[in-house]
Amino acid sequence: MKKVILFTHEPIVVPELVLGSREIGAVVEFQGLVREIEGELALDGLYYEAYEEMAEKVLAGHLDELGELHGCEAVEFVHRLGWVPVGGASLYIRVLSAHRAEGLRFLADSIDRLKMDVPIWKRVEG
Amino acid sequence: MKKVILFTHEPIVVPELVLGSREIGAVVEFQGLVREIEGELALDGLYYEAYEEMAEKVLAGHLDELGELHGCEAVEFVHRLGWVPVGGASLYIRVLSAHRAEGLRFLADSIDRLKMDVPIWKRVEG
Repeated sequence: MKKVILFTHEPIVVPELVLGSREIGAVVEFQGLVREIEGELALDGLYYEAYEEMAEKVLAGHLDELGELHGCEAVEFVHRLGWVPVGGASLYIRVLSAHRAEGLRFLADSIDRLKMDVPIWKRVEG
Repeated sequence: MKKVILFTHEPIVVPELVLGSREIGAVVEFQGLVREIEGELALDGLYYEAYEEMAEKVLAGHLDELGELHGCEAVEFVHRLGWVPVGGASLYIRVLSAHRAEGLRFLADSIDRLKMDVPIWKRVEG
């Protein structure tokens, strides 16, 4: 499985779609946005921090494993760091696969794993 | 739930993202592409036909029901008709929701229902 992992301190720009195969039947994309209400707080945005080197390593392991498990063709994974205002995307994921079922499973699992043990944190104060 | 259904004979253009609420936390998008191999046939593309008025009515009913069931904020649903070459998108869906779980469920269910009883057909010859 082709895999791109990117951390950026700028607003996320969706990468150009490159199929690379005539057997891709499903493109699944996800954006995680910062919401105004988090628990009982009304926010203007959130700060994201990562231990980048380790985050990339742990995430790469998860994505490779999920790629084997679900049989997808490619994944692009972009995480914004630093200040992200309400309505802004902190996370963008695109999965290419032959059929929709494996792409949807990959996407759901990859977000679950991101929240499991990848060293990226969010906080209210900068 | 806000809902847009569009049939087009042109290549699908992804609509501009309009959030409309500071409580949207998840944007889930899907593109269904025509694949070269369908069963044992190698294709250049597929022709899509619809009984448009009925397709829109049946689909609108499904989307409203799924909106109630999963609690999503908005859905945009675009289906291309006519000739779609291999690698081209015949279907685009975007779901906005507070959290990812309901958006992913809505997306999966809406594609299942589209294939269930919405009068849209594909064929190899024009």
